This record gives sequence, structure tokens and C-alpha cells, in this order.
Amino acid sequence: MKLIFATHNKNKLLEIAAMMPSNFELLSLDDIGCNEDIPETSNTIEGNAILKADYVKQHYNLDCFADDTGLEVEILNGEPGVHSARYAGNRKNDEANISKLLDELKATRNRKAQFKTVIALNLQDHQILFIGICTGKITRGPRGTFGFGYDSVFQPDGSDKTFGEMTLEEKSTFSHRGKALRDLLDYLGS
Amino acid sequence: MKLIFATHNKNKLLEIAAMMPSNFELLSLDDIGCNEDIPETSNTIEGNAILKADYVKQHYNLDCFADDTGLEVEILNGEPGVHSARYAGNRKNDEANISKLLDELKATRNRKAQFKTVIALNLQDHQILFIGICTGKITRGPRGTFGFGYDSVFQPDGSDKTFGEMTLEEKSTFSHRGKALRDLLDYLGS
Repeated sequence: MKLIFATHNKNKLLEIAAMMPSNFELLSLDDIGCNEDIPETSNTIEGNAILKADYVKQHYNLDCFADDTGLEVEILNGEPGVHSARYAGNRKNDEANISKLLDELKATRNRKAQFKTVIALNLQDHQILFIGICTGKITRGPRGTFGFGYDSVFQPDGSDKTFGEMTLEEKSTFSHRGKALRDLLDYLGS
Repeated sequence: MKLIFATHNKNKLLEIAAMMPSNFELLSLDDIGCNEDIPETSNTIEGNAILKADYVKQHYNLDCFADDTGLEVEILNGEPGVHSARYAGNRKNDEANISKLLDELKATRNRKAQFKTVIALNLQDHQILFIGICTGKITRGPRGTFGFGYDSVFQPDGSDKTFGEMTLEEKSTFSHRGKALRDLLDYLGS
């Protein structure tokens, strides 16, 4: 089965491709000749996942899915949330984002946070969203060099490692994106 | 299988119950002794469906689903949308809402609109959203006495009747809520 994953993000593509069974042919936006940066103008994670999946449906009429992810910190009332990728400014910059987050939290002992991934699937005329949540805490400083985004400062419940200290396979057993993707694959009957 | 539908709305309960196969035992909030009006404080339809389903999960730890629905009018940039139930004021009032909508549209020939239903399902630790959309137009005045909400002024594409002129069964073949619910039931394997 051919399925478009509406992303240009090579890290996300790598994570998803690693979990895909071999009977799926996973294509990225680049693979279908779409060089556009699809505008993510919604103020929710669900909304942005829908925007991206709908864009591919409308412009290419292909079965597809899109993912949007945010880090929701309890003491910051769910921020950075939908703004996670651009928390410290308009350009995506992991280091600046992490630095801002640690700075915001430096005076607090409440480090609770959760990653939330929403995968929006457009299949024929059906639209279904799979939501994966991973609870954990923000560490005092970065640990590990794997992963991307906030991975080096997020330690999921049930582990003493940050995502930055985990292999892709290990991360996927815990992670928000892993959960949402497993639900998607269950749904597709694989 | 026992499933809670997180609503006090008897009209919605009736629509959903009519489509439920007999191997499902559908219980409402009243049936489980929940008399609270669950706050719908999100600014999106998806968000409110999630809020309601999560409330039941957190307080009762039962498998459940919740629905939120909005009418999105093209020329009004998607309004009333998440505000559909309280468009004309803080109390739910179908007549006042319809009257306000017809007034907003009285000078325009673009009557395009869509109903959108989001059903959020919480099953064990999985959360999945089923989205049903029904495109159509807003009529010049109310027609028919069936249904509720904006049904009497909404005519779905492919029909010359408004939802207000359709039986429940007829409405469900077209409707946003019918589509989302059929996807939910497919998922549950019935």
C-alpha cells in the first residue's frame, strides 16, 4: 500500500520509516514532487496535523497522513505546545528552544511535561486522528545526543534516560509518536 | 461491549443510539450518575470532543467517546464553528442561533457551509478521533421540523431537502455525525 507522509522533516521520516511494515511504501513530500512548506497556521496540534494532511489530499488526491507534535509543560499551562518548534523565535532552532525552556523552568521544581503527537490520516473520504501522549519530566540540563527537538531534556515516565540517550527503537517503545503510529498501523490492519 | 457516550444531549443520544449495533450497550452521562456539565472551554471542535472524553476517563476510568459538532460557513470564515451552540448568546437557543445566522447571510449569495463532527474515543490508553464532514448550503429560511440545532436551514449536497425535512435514518446517511460514527463502529470492529 502506497501512503504519503506529509513531511519534509528527515528526522520524523526516519522514525516513522523504522516502524513501517514492509508492505507499505512510504513516500515523503519530496518523493511526490511537493517542495512547498505547508503553512501550519492552526493554533492547535490537531489543527496543524489536519492542515498538512488536507493539503496533500486537496493538491495531489493521494492517501496520506501528517503528524504534528508539541511539548506541553504543566507549569507553563501547556506551552510551548503548538509553538514548540519555534518557541525561541521564527526559525526552527533546537538549541535556542531548549535554552529558553530550561530558563523558564529554572526556578521551579515542577518539571512535569508531556509530548503529544497527532497523526491525521486521510484515506479516501475518511479522516481519522491518532493521538499519542508520553508523560515525563524536563531534566535540569540536556543529556544525550540522539533524537532531535527537545529529546535531550525530556525523560519519559518509567525510564531513567532522556529520549536523547535512547536509540530510535528504544524511544519508539515509549514515545508519543510511536504510540500514535502503532494505532495508525493497527487501524490499517497491518 | 459497554461504552459511555459523554453527553447529556438527548437529541445526540437518539441519533447515535439509532445507529448502534445491538452488541453495544450505550450509556449516557446520566446513566453513570454524572450530572456535571463538562466545561467546553477549547477553541476548537477537536479540543472540546477531547475535553469531554478525557473527563469521563479521568473521573470514571471507563471506555467512552464524546462528540462535538460545529457548523462552518464559508463566507463567515468558518464561523460559528466551535461557537455554534451559543452563537446568539450564552444560553443554547436554536431559534435565536438560526435567526442570527440567516441575518448574517441575508446579503450574500455564497451560502456554502459544512457541518463537522469530531468523535473522540478513549479506549484503554488509546485516543482516536473520527472526523465527519458534510458539505452543503444554508437555505434562505427554515424548512422542516425534524432534527435540532441548524438542521432546518442546512441542505446537504446531493439532496433537495434540509436535515429538518429528513427522518433520522435519512439524515444519518448524509450527515457528519453519521460518517464519524460509522468510522468509529468500523474501528470497533462491528
